[in-house]
Amino acid sequence: MSSVRDGSPPPTVPLGAGVEFDTIRRFLAHGRAPHPSVAVGPGDDAAVFEGGWVLSTDLTVEDVHFRRGWASPEEIGGRAVLAALSDLAGMAARPVGVLASVAFPQEPDDAYAEAVMAGVCGAADAWDAPLIGGDLSRSPGPLVLDIVVVGQAESPCLRAGSVAGDRIWVTGALGSSAAAVRTWEAGREPSPELREAFLRPTPRISVALALAAGGRIHAMLDLSDGLAGDAGHLAAAGDLRAVIEIERIPVSEAARVALGEEVALEMALHGGEDYELCFTTASELPAADLEAAGVRLTCVGRMEQGKGVWVQSPGGELRQVTRGGFDHFAGQGG
Amino acid sequence: MSSVRDGSPPPTVPLGAGVEFDTIRRFLAHGRAPHPSVAVGPGDDAAVFEGGWVLSTDLTVEDVHFRRGWASPEEIGGRAVLAALSDLAGMAARPVGVLASVAFPQEPDDAYAEAVMAGVCGAADAWDAPLIGGDLSRSPGPLVLDIVVVGQAESPCLRAGSVAGDRIWVTGALGSSAAAVRTWEAGREPSPELREAFLRPTPRISVALALAAGGRIHAMLDLSDGLAGDAGHLAAAGDLRAVIEIERIPVSEAARVALGEEVALEMALHGGEDYELCFTTASELPAADLEAAGVRLTCVGRMEQGKGVWVQSPGGELRQVTRGGFDHFAGQGG
Repeated sequence: MSSVRDGSPPPTVPLGAGVEFDTIRRFLAHGRAPHPSVAVGPGDDAAVFEGGWVLSTDLTVEDVHFRRGWASPEEIGGRAVLAALSDLAGMAARPVGVLASVAFPQEPDDAYAEAVMAGVCGAADAWDAPLIGGDLSRSPGPLVLDIVVVGQAESPCLRAGSVAGDRIWVTGALGSSAAAVRTWEAGREPSPELREAFLRPTPRISVALALAAGGRIHAMLDLSDGLAGDAGHLAAAGDLRAVIEIERIPVSEAARVALGEEVALEMALHGGEDYELCFTTASELPAADLEAAGVRLTCVGRMEQGKGVWVQSPGGELRQVTRGGFDHFAGQGG
Repeated sequence: MSSVRDGSPPPTVPLGAGVEFDTIRRFLAHGRAPHPSVAVGPGDDAAVFEGGWVLSTDLTVEDVHFRRGWASPEEIGGRAVLAALSDLAGMAARPVGVLASVAFPQEPDDAYAEAVMAGVCGAADAWDAPLIGGDLSRSPGPLVLDIVVVGQAESPCLRAGSVAGDRIWVTGALGSSAAAVRTWEAGREPSPELREAFLRPTPRISVALALAAGGRIHAMLDLSDGLAGDAGHLAAAGDLRAVIEIERIPVSEAARVALGEEVALEMALHGGEDYELCFTTASELPAADLEAAGVRLTCVGRMEQGKGVWVQSPGGELRQVTRGGFDHFAGQGG
């Protein structure tokens, strides 16, 4: 979940909502003990109920998560659904349905609102998760979408479960989405590839289901806060430290072209909203798994005894990550 | 779901969101066929999944559903949860958990945001539905809360199921909540009783469970659009007409005192957000049921062959309802 600022100069990187919400987030992370039929409660990508039902909700706010000028209303509605479905991928859950709560500004007109809903329904149908409910309202301010996704998982993959010695993997390439935001905020139009990465991320459902069925995954989540932040979530949940080898990170080529090597790496580590998967396994994945995945799988590092997220330079030097997507769980893992 | 307008003169009655959202609502009502494990899809108070899981989502937007000056942040957070839990009552479902997506304005400060969340958690815990997830964001405009409620129902009560000859019942007294809004919008402070009705509605969970367990309910929903609108939903779902006997409506005494007989009746019929139950039964309820309910149960009318909602005067004259909470489903039942 990265943010953009309204009316202020372009930020160096999109700000994770984490830093400023530390105190408030505690309400989500440390509530009362859940009902016995709730198998997984607050703190993971989604809640899990008896019968393997998986439930998550994802909020998209105009001028925080997107600007209206960046995309068509269909794309804005669709993106909100794709981002929410990514939470199901992070749990290795199969999508079943979507509920959409949307607050529509009076402007520009109802045709715009209908187009947003068409985008919501289109993306939901495309991922076999038809709209099964929701709520609509006017908004006296921004367009706000809260997308609730419902899925089914035989054995949901959680954030906890890594052990020391595990390898850390990611799907796809990282940094494109944040690079698109950065480019827009600088007043330029991103390349079609960057734009696509931001507006039409692919929830990694099928590879998540395949890997989970193979029993290879120790822990998993979807990448929404940047690799550093999310590897940190896995590390904290396993009471371990994550070591990321800088030169192994599959930094988006399109981000490199647009922003240069250093900023593109920054986007991959701290940008957020890649909606790829990050997971841990006991060992290398067999070649057959890598070929069958349908998406590039890259081992980016390892879990070790310790705390926090560390990056390792090609020369072997270790440096703890203390900024960007990482700050907001400093209390847990850093 | 009633609305108030921002900056404009006080409306005669809070406007149901229905009228202006007709086209957009069709996306929620007529989506693609749901997944086979979805027992009840779009169009009811909540979706129902295999295993009796019931799921609903309820959106509360500042300056549409409330104004910040009307209540403390704890009360605003709590009310959003109570309103959402009422949808579970409408299905005769037992609450299990709550997910809260909240977009917080920068102003006044984070202590305000924390107090909103404390209100959310307090109400959720009080109804044995602890917070199990959610999402948080900044808002560049209004405070927005989307509350997802999860419940369990052995045999969920739906909107469809009434037959001609059925009696129509409501719990409690009607019109207080809308009368509070009307009073605030006129620049006055509502009486403590009206204020309480708006800010702390009681989700009618226990009476719903008791009546459903007794097998007496043909169809049910919770009253959010006003008696006329919601009786119309039941009528449309049963392909019947609802006849409401004016003098039987349990109009709130506090609303009568504040606004006079005629306006109080208007609030009960069209005001909305009472969060009482409206249900149909084949016959009168036995005295034992009425006593055990713990809340006043009033028979307000009957279902007949036909369409729409009709009000019957004490003299027996019938008049079709064509305004307020009723307009927005004219296409279905009127």
